[in-house]
Amino acid sequence: MTDPAGNARAAQRAAMRAGGDLRSAALLALDGLLDARRDAIDAANQADLVAAKAADLDGPLLDRLALSPTKLDVLRGGVRDLASRPDPVGAVRRHTRLDDGLELRLVSSPLGVLLIVFESRPDAVIQIGSLAMRSGNAVLLKGGSEASATNRVLVQCLRDALQSVGLPSDLVIGVEGRAAVGELLTRDDAIDLVIPRGSGKLVRTITDSTRIPVLGHAEGVCHVYLDAGADPHKAARIVVDGVTDYPAACNATETILVHRDFVAQFQGVREALLTSDGALVEPSTDADWGTEYGTKTANVRIVDSLDEAIDHIHTYGSGHTDAIVTEDEHAARRFLAEVDSASVVHNASTRFADGYRYGLGAEVGIATGRLHARGPVGVDGLLTTRWLLQGGGHIVSEYSRGERSFSWADLLDPS
Amino acid sequence: MTDPAGNARAAQRAAMRAGGDLRSAALLALDGLLDARRDAIDAANQADLVAAKAADLDGPLLDRLALSPTKLDVLRGGVRDLASRPDPVGAVRRHTRLDDGLELRLVSSPLGVLLIVFESRPDAVIQIGSLAMRSGNAVLLKGGSEASATNRVLVQCLRDALQSVGLPSDLVIGVEGRAAVGELLTRDDAIDLVIPRGSGKLVRTITDSTRIPVLGHAEGVCHVYLDAGADPHKAARIVVDGVTDYPAACNATETILVHRDFVAQFQGVREALLTSDGALVEPSTDADWGTEYGTKTANVRIVDSLDEAIDHIHTYGSGHTDAIVTEDEHAARRFLAEVDSASVVHNASTRFADGYRYGLGAEVGIATGRLHARGPVGVDGLLTTRWLLQGGGHIVSEYSRGERSFSWADLLDPS
Repeated sequence: MTDPAGNARAAQRAAMRAGGDLRSAALLALDGLLDARRDAIDAANQADLVAAKAADLDGPLLDRLALSPTKLDVLRGGVRDLASRPDPVGAVRRHTRLDDGLELRLVSSPLGVLLIVFESRPDAVIQIGSLAMRSGNAVLLKGGSEASATNRVLVQCLRDALQSVGLPSDLVIGVEGRAAVGELLTRDDAIDLVIPRGSGKLVRTITDSTRIPVLGHAEGVCHVYLDAGADPHKAARIVVDGVTDYPAACNATETILVHRDFVAQFQGVREALLTSDGALVEPSTDADWGTEYGTKTANVRIVDSLDEAIDHIHTYGSGHTDAIVTEDEHAARRFLAEVDSASVVHNASTRFADGYRYGLGAEVGIATGRLHARGPVGVDGLLTTRWLLQGGGHIVSEYSRGERSFSWADLLDPS
Repeated sequence: MTDPAGNARAAQRAAMRAGGDLRSAALLALDGLLDARRDAIDAANQADLVAAKAADLDGPLLDRLALSPTKLDVLRGGVRDLASRPDPVGAVRRHTRLDDGLELRLVSSPLGVLLIVFESRPDAVIQIGSLAMRSGNAVLLKGGSEASATNRVLVQCLRDALQSVGLPSDLVIGVEGRAAVGELLTRDDAIDLVIPRGSGKLVRTITDSTRIPVLGHAEGVCHVYLDAGADPHKAARIVVDGVTDYPAACNATETILVHRDFVAQFQGVREALLTSDGALVEPSTDADWGTEYGTKTANVRIVDSLDEAIDHIHTYGSGHTDAIVTEDEHAARRFLAEVDSASVVHNASTRFADGYRYGLGAEVGIATGRLHARGPVGVDGLLTTRWLLQGGGHIVSEYSRGERSFSWADLLDPS
């Protein structure tokens, strides 16, 4: 009987004593193996592509499946970048002297065991695998069956890289087959976080079938509100970018809310959008307001006030990313303070909501949940904290009896 | 039809535009009302106590139910302390200039709507209600039926305090009856976090019956490991304090792990424990190792090594708080690095794991989950974050085409 979740948990705990230098060394070893084995990786990827074409899979899926030498080089650059970054494990977030000789630190620690379920793109093996390595986590990787040959070679590179520096290879375990995932989703005793990377359907299916916390987002229904005080030129730029730049992305704009007093100027926005192959529709049912089209089409609605725009966003939005275009500072301030979304934007495109653009480096995903991590998530999303208390024989009863008392001096940020 | 969850959500969103000063004013108004209505509070509490005695409820429960004038004054002090603390809402945690005129801030924001389910102690209405007020959250409060008269008067104080400063009174809503809670636990659309305060059974029942994230802990099975290098005097102090100071607390010590080379010196620890009315048992079944006794009794086990001690903690512990007693710096470092618990302690009592002692001020609870908040949780546990992006008409396609590029300057911590 194999027990991948149990093996991953054991490997992760065994690796807790390893330092950041060893994790950096494993990443550099990975970079080397991806280079040394590029022919094997390419051959496996070609095999997957041939099988996918034979199975009549569609063009966009073939694009995602292909792992070209250029893509591999970009991935390797990301791995080297991670290797050179400071170790995120053990960073001290709070440091308090509770009393003489009694010091408390809150330190960042690996989350534990991650389960990543992804579709088509084998890039995810490297991206998430290396993020897990950097952060001291173990990871169970389940990719789509259409990429199974590529994934297998890449997972082996990760395992061999770990072993080459003396870390347990079971920090990375490849998982195949639907049944295996179903089984893993029941293991809330051994898995700490599930990260689905793929369609909204995948995310919903996983969220509905596990008690393990899920980091991700099923929908990205993003709004741009053109306020009465909007600059027409900025409005046109931001709407065209949001709707047409990459409509399949979760941060693409789905709905334009137009203040009644901006309707006359909105004609220019509409023309700019049509020029860029975009289209506007007026939904006939309530459900349409909450639907992510994934095309260069946006819903449009006239609203009477900022309040009505915010209400619309709270009623139909997905809490992902919502923007206001206005020169009215008061309206902008209210929108930024009151809209309850992971990203709230003033005079810029919703498309900026992304880990790379936000400067987080490698991206774990975008979360629309409120707990733990919200919006674009970098390596911090793979960390938790532990409180470390060091004393010299200190006991609580002496404080209860008033023989000693706490002084609580902040040693990290003394002010 | 009343919809408490929906009403709380609407109130919370309406209050997003309120500033911290208004929240402070509401807290000061609450302090005043608790003083002005102390006779009504006392009368309600006496009525609850009379009914509880008539129903033959046990002594400890009566103690928890009683809200004496002294307890009320301590609670009022906590409310005033919260009123004077800096506003936690809107604190900037990251600030990055992505490019000229394009600035990104990560700001702390209220989590949204909290559901607190607590047993017996009416103090929780004030403690959690005031923490929710300070952090801009709405809160649904469901207390035990034995405290219903007291809870009703206290909830009304909170609602009146909010209304007196112009905040929506539905930021605090009292809920009564088991059926109402069952219904609320299905409302993952409108409730963001459930905080159960009470027995392990209450926490487990709630965790098993909701999809809403739960902040809390069902068990506190805490260990003290007496290493080969332990100082016998410190060992005795720390074991006695952990086992006997307040055995009903979740941070009380349940199991003593003794290194084989410390067995001879352990005799002194055993005698100190017996002198303090403590007892040691050697469990006969595996299940006993994972049981929280809540009495002055501790399990004892001889182990051959630090590794065996850590394995025992990972196998039978609850991830709450675990301590090592040793003068051996290497053993201490390994224990602190490798034990995967919310609090890990060196040469001090497990009983320190508590929000007040950790210097967090008022305590929301102690969480043994890994996500969002871990260990003793202060007001930070009631906050989430939002990304606020402000530009001047910036669009992503100009960056994709290479016409502009990101500079990512850290404005919060420029180094």
